[in-house]
Parts: sequence; structure tokens; C-alpha cells
Amino acid sequence: MTIDLHAETRPTGVDAAVAAARRVIDALVRAGDISGADMADVADRLNAVADDLEDTAPPLDERLVDMWRGDGNTRHDPVTGPENPIAPPLRYEAVDTRTIEATTTLGLPHQGPPSSVHGGVSALLLDHTLGVANGWAGTSGMTAELTLRYHRLTPLFEPITVAARQVSVDGRKIRTTGEITANGEPCVTAEGLFIATYPPRPR
Amino acid sequence: MTIDLHAETRPTGVDAAVAAARRVIDALVRAGDISGADMADVADRLNAVADDLEDTAPPLDERLVDMWRGDGNTRHDPVTGPENPIAPPLRYEAVDTRTIEATTTLGLPHQGPPSSVHGGVSALLLDHTLGVANGWAGTSGMTAELTLRYHRLTPLFEPITVAARQVSVDGRKIRTTGEITANGEPCVTAEGLFIATYPPRPR
Repeated sequence: MTIDLHAETRPTGVDAAVAAARRVIDALVRAGDISGADMADVADRLNAVADDLEDTAPPLDERLVDMWRGDGNTRHDPVTGPENPIAPPLRYEAVDTRTIEATTTLGLPHQGPPSSVHGGVSALLLDHTLGVANGWAGTSGMTAELTLRYHRLTPLFEPITVAARQVSVDGRKIRTTGEITANGEPCVTAEGLFIATYPPRPR
Repeated sequence: MTIDLHAETRPTGVDAAVAAARRVIDALVRAGDISGADMADVADRLNAVADDLEDTAPPLDERLVDMWRGDGNTRHDPVTGPENPIAPPLRYEAVDTRTIEATTTLGLPHQGPPSSVHGGVSALLLDHTLGVANGWAGTSGMTAELTLRYHRLTPLFEPITVAARQVSVDGRKIRTTGEITANGEPCVTAEGLFIATYPPRPR
């Protein structure tokens, strides 16, 4: 059995629009109120796009069934999903049968301390990566407890690696660890306890 | 002394453009590839906005100094910032001299399990809220350790409350707790250890 660690980004359709939306997000945080842009015009153009999307939106129930079909959440989740503008997105590779990792570079939308990744964003990336490592190792579950330790600031604007490894499965209890490193040094480490259960998918 | 728990959203300038960008983010995740929208056209229009913003962007160093001036990160952080499209945004109120809370409703961009908030998004909201509670109580610091316990699924599409309280300050060690509740029931609880230090602001 092969499983997808993340969904592939397609060059057309919603994935292309989402990639463009990520550029808008980055550029707006970079601009603030000190750029030369006409922000009233930008707001009008973005509201016009939102109007068109809302006018043609599928019913929520229909979209929920659609988005949980097949690969499930890998196309739309807020960490790897090519359909989600909030996702950086992370692109995982398998390191071994129980370990995965992704390298990414984050910018101003994910800032906490000056020029550093927000501690809560690190928590988001790690929680998700621990969950995907569980799937890769063969036994998935819901997060029951997650402990994060912050060792040094995680930098923006340069490559960071997010890795996770399933350590043990004992009955329904799954234990998984992970870390974010930059320049080979650990910035944040995580320990997670997951319970092997999952709510039903929308039908 | 009064401190701002969050920055006020202005009706014009970048805040208005960011509010429109949030509508686009929500509508794109709602649409997926099953809406009636012409996604190639949407991508073109969003890329054109990004081009214009990038062409008029301030130098990064200049923006970093600007964004850390005065209120510091409350205008641009990824949880409350009116200049950050990724922020839901949370709007805090003081409950007492050491406790704050915010009520918000999250949608599809923040989904983890079906129709539920992503566990890592809950971690992001709690980490930030614990930090703001520290500021409100008078002694702030950097997250050193954060433990999250997940008691039940946190729902999308209905109001949830994110609260935090500074419990103790012992030398440089700050202990803070928080929780996310829905319909009065705890969904996620958090315990944080913060160290009273902060990196210098860009100048």
C-alpha cells in the first residue's frame, strides 16, 4: 500500500487560484500601510473576486462530502493543502518507514517575535506533521495531548525542516515525536499522544 | 496604564484589503474544484493584485521596523492582526486583571477533522492568547513550554471562546493556562511556561 504524504499541487483549477491567493497574503503583510499601493482599489478587486466565488459556491454540505472523499483532508488542510491559501504548504518526504520530514521557508504572515516564526504556528506545523507521520507508519489517531518545547527562535526567511516520527503504538495509544530545525539546530521539539480513533466522514 | 489587547480594525487602508482577502480565502476553500467559478480567471485576477502589491512593496527592512513600532505585533500577528489575512482575527476582552477571552467562529480554512477545528489551529490560538494574557497581567515572555490537552472536538461554524489567565510569576518563570470552550464545554486546555525575556525590535 502506498499513501500520499501530501496531495500534489495541480497547475490549474482551484490550486492555481490558491497559489495566487498565497501571493496576495504575503504581499499584503509585506505592504502594511507604508506601500505605494492603492489599498482601496486592492480591496475593491479582492471583494469582487470574493463576490464571484460566493455567487457560484457549492452548498456547504456538498463541499464537505466532496472534500472528504478519497485522499480526505490532504487537499484542503491548513498545513499541506493545495486548496487552502493558509497552508504554507509543507511537502513531506519519507525518511524511513516511521519518519517523515518537510523543508519550507516561512515569511511575514507567520511571524511571532521579530523575524521569527510564531510559536503557535510552529505548534500547528508540528501537530499536523506528527499526525501525517502516524498515517505513514500505519496507525493514525486524533491528538489527545501535545507538548511543545521551545529551545531557540525559529527563523523566518530561511529554510527550516519539520520532521516527525512515530515512536510506539500501545493498544489505542500512539506516541509520536517531532522537531523543527534550522541550520541543523533544534528550535522546537514536540511529543504527542494520539488515540487511534477518528470521526466519520461526511456523506 | 492601559494596554491594547488587540489592534482596532480600520475601515480603510490595508485593513480593508485584508478583510477582503479573508473573504477570498474562505470562498476558495469553500469552492474547491466543484464550484461554478472560472478558476483560471480568478487566478489571473489574484495574480494581478499580487503583481501590483509586489511592484509597490516597501523594502523588507523598512517594513520590519514599521511593523514593530508602537503597539508592536498587535497589528500584524497571525491571530489578531488586522493587517494579516491569516488571522481569524480574535478580538479579546478583559475578564479580570489577569484573564482575557475572545469569542470567534471558524470556517473551512481552519478545518482538521470533518467540521472541526484543526488541533494545530487550536494550539496556535491558545499559544497566542496565553501570551496576550501575560501582557495584560503585566509580565510578558517567550513561550518555553506549551502543553495542550484535547478533550473533545472543537466545532467549526459555531461560536467558540478562547480564554487565558496568568496563574503565577516566579522570577523569570511565568505560568499561564487557557482553554477553548464551545457551548460551555471545554474542548482544548493549555498550560504554558513562559520566560520573561524578549528579543530586540528591529530598528
